[in-house]
Amino acid sequence: MSFPKIDETHDAALKSWVPGADGHTDFPIQNLPYGIFSPSGGAPRAGVAIGNHILDLHQAGAAGLLPCDVVPATRQPTLNALFSLPAASRLALRRTLSRLLSEERMRALVEPMLFPADMCLLHLPAAIGDYTDFYVGIHHATNIGKLFRPDNPLLPNYKYVPIGYHGRASSIRPSGMPVVRPRGQRKLPDADVPVVGPSTRLDYELELGIWIGTGNMLGAPIDIADATDHIAGFCLLNDWSARDFQAWEYVPLGPFLAKNFHSTISPWVITSEALAPYRLPQPGRPDGDPQPLPYLLDTADQAGGAFAVTLKVFLSSAKMREAGLAPHQLSHGQATSMYWTAQQIVTHHASNGCNLNPGDLLGTGTLSSPDPEGFGSLMELTQGGRNAITLPSGEERLFLEDGDEVILRASAVAEGHVAIGFGDCVARIVPAR
Amino acid sequence: MSFPKIDETHDAALKSWVPGADGHTDFPIQNLPYGIFSPSGGAPRAGVAIGNHILDLHQAGAAGLLPCDVVPATRQPTLNALFSLPAASRLALRRTLSRLLSEERMRALVEPMLFPADMCLLHLPAAIGDYTDFYVGIHHATNIGKLFRPDNPLLPNYKYVPIGYHGRASSIRPSGMPVVRPRGQRKLPDADVPVVGPSTRLDYELELGIWIGTGNMLGAPIDIADATDHIAGFCLLNDWSARDFQAWEYVPLGPFLAKNFHSTISPWVITSEALAPYRLPQPGRPDGDPQPLPYLLDTADQAGGAFAVTLKVFLSSAKMREAGLAPHQLSHGQATSMYWTAQQIVTHHASNGCNLNPGDLLGTGTLSSPDPEGFGSLMELTQGGRNAITLPSGEERLFLEDGDEVILRASAVAEGHVAIGFGDCVARIVPAR
Repeated sequence: MSFPKIDETHDAALKSWVPGADGHTDFPIQNLPYGIFSPSGGAPRAGVAIGNHILDLHQAGAAGLLPCDVVPATRQPTLNALFSLPAASRLALRRTLSRLLSEERMRALVEPMLFPADMCLLHLPAAIGDYTDFYVGIHHATNIGKLFRPDNPLLPNYKYVPIGYHGRASSIRPSGMPVVRPRGQRKLPDADVPVVGPSTRLDYELELGIWIGTGNMLGAPIDIADATDHIAGFCLLNDWSARDFQAWEYVPLGPFLAKNFHSTISPWVITSEALAPYRLPQPGRPDGDPQPLPYLLDTADQAGGAFAVTLKVFLSSAKMREAGLAPHQLSHGQATSMYWTAQQIVTHHASNGCNLNPGDLLGTGTLSSPDPEGFGSLMELTQGGRNAITLPSGEERLFLEDGDEVILRASAVAEGHVAIGFGDCVARIVPAR
Repeated sequence: MSFPKIDETHDAALKSWVPGADGHTDFPIQNLPYGIFSPSGGAPRAGVAIGNHILDLHQAGAAGLLPCDVVPATRQPTLNALFSLPAASRLALRRTLSRLLSEERMRALVEPMLFPADMCLLHLPAAIGDYTDFYVGIHHATNIGKLFRPDNPLLPNYKYVPIGYHGRASSIRPSGMPVVRPRGQRKLPDADVPVVGPSTRLDYELELGIWIGTGNMLGAPIDIADATDHIAGFCLLNDWSARDFQAWEYVPLGPFLAKNFHSTISPWVITSEALAPYRLPQPGRPDGDPQPLPYLLDTADQAGGAFAVTLKVFLSSAKMREAGLAPHQLSHGQATSMYWTAQQIVTHHASNGCNLNPGDLLGTGTLSSPDPEGFGSLMELTQGGRNAITLPSGEERLFLEDGDEVILRASAVAEGHVAIGFGDCVARIVPAR
């Protein structure tokens, strides 16, 4: 396992000449996340976020400012080619960008390639070939399990298998796109037959997304010691869920229409390189838990496979916005609640020979904390829709209402380092058709 | 609902001038399935199968022999663009091809564009964006359910919900590619902990694949009356399954590594147009079964939504091949064992607004008959691995061994019409790495 190292690009003293890049921003010079954007009226292109601006990577490459081997990837309207670059090339690109955006002598050359972010449209960063959602947030799995099996919330396979299932790639949308409340079948507990209509138990799920970098060939597993090289970066993921549909449809083959109507991701790819300073040892397993099976065990991964990333969920209702109330924080959580690391997830996924491709997206599953302040879904916060929460407007919520806007945010924090953020993952519920 | 109609292209008296196209072939002039092929050393291109030959659609289009509106689609190395053509254009292409390959006066012009099929490599017909596998073979669902719940094999949702789940698109391969026996976790019933190793319960599943033609926008469901326009065609699908992995991993989120290591499809797309003569009324539901919910109910679909398609599974072991023994028929089944039609599957999938795209693939799930001769998987044939079957070589099988080759075949038959076939869906098991 060779995690990206802390280098001069992470130096807390480093400053960008870009106005506004050094204040309270998710995107200081130490972050440098990639995305796909359109300047007003322009074609989609690769960019890097810096403060409230976006640097056009296509222009920078065409001007000869970037390493030669990454230039072809910067010409694409998706980041798939950039994700598939070798780790050394990705690192060289980061170091070059760090210099371009911090050295004052570069300013005259680079400044014309910057666009104000609020004038740009952000797209999905990659063409997502396959999307897989995992279930590695152990507190979420425990909370949900308790609703059904109070004495035995976790199933016997949970501590051996990073549980996951395939999701729908086509309905993943970037932050900002409205979510149409889905219609579908639900059966009330005391009813004989299901009814069809708009979901009455629409929920969010707070997750991290993992972007696959280089892939593997069909039939060729990924060793846990190599898994980090296959991870291009991370994003926020809201795995919208219709709990009423889910309860009725999910046996025996898992969630389907309860999930695949829409998933929202934050559009910026927080790279593995950017996250180097925020690595943590994987939390020790509680006494009595089994060790990971050998194919999932790596001492370097245990020493640095977790992240000091804090996640938060906010809700803003239509009434709150009318009243000028700020979004209300519903929850906060920690990426350390992942029972399996990103590397273990990737290695498990490919362990049977399944081939991952650049631009595939993996979700961690909901990242809840054990305490109610850290519950990552309404299903948990309201105990399955039994106990309403109250918003600052006085409104109550068991599940999401039309007009509700859910905002996911996250930041990585480490002593002696500048905090970096993930950018907002936001979407508003609009009425069913 | 407007199913493609029977027209002059289905006339049993129609003959092709292509040598060998009129005998015992899956691909008589009445079939005209599309695929992507490479002539020896050539680039992948679109083609149509006729007898033992393949007509190069790219060449035919470039020579001005095809309708103008389909020509751009014939220039692509996948059929996605062809799938997304309006129904009228797809029909016009079929009628043109029928004339080109039957009228003797066309022979001089068209014959140079034919390649012997056995000199060509066949590829996946489309770039598969998303793959969904359903579970609509009611006898299979009943047989599998009986293994776990003898008195109550079908779950309460089965007769209301076309049960399905998302599968892995990246590991779908065309007929002929070897299948590497997957490694993974399995837990024996009397063991405390799982072990990791090659699957010892490797199985096939006999399914039909449904190719999506035109898609729908996110948030915009597909009315059952329009569903047929969204179906480009059909293929055979072998949903290889590691039963030992499946039993351990599948709760609570469904099959994952038990399935996603490899799926095999037949490379020719049997079009909805070609299947017009073989349509049947949907079999009546047994007394006491509920009517489909309104969004899944259409009288035209009930009158013609099923197909007179017979499916067969053959097995050939290494020892059988050495002894010169022909592949052994393990099973046969009928597409009429689908509890839900292809149209109902498509409409249900999009009913929550989920967007389907041209080239998406849907599997029906295993199509078994109620009698043992029609069981579509070894899991059913051997009663969960308890009763071995005997091959002509004297070998016994509970599950698949290395060197075993599984061949799926299917044909559509109707009184007064020439039978058409699907082409072989074949793959051999090779040892785990």
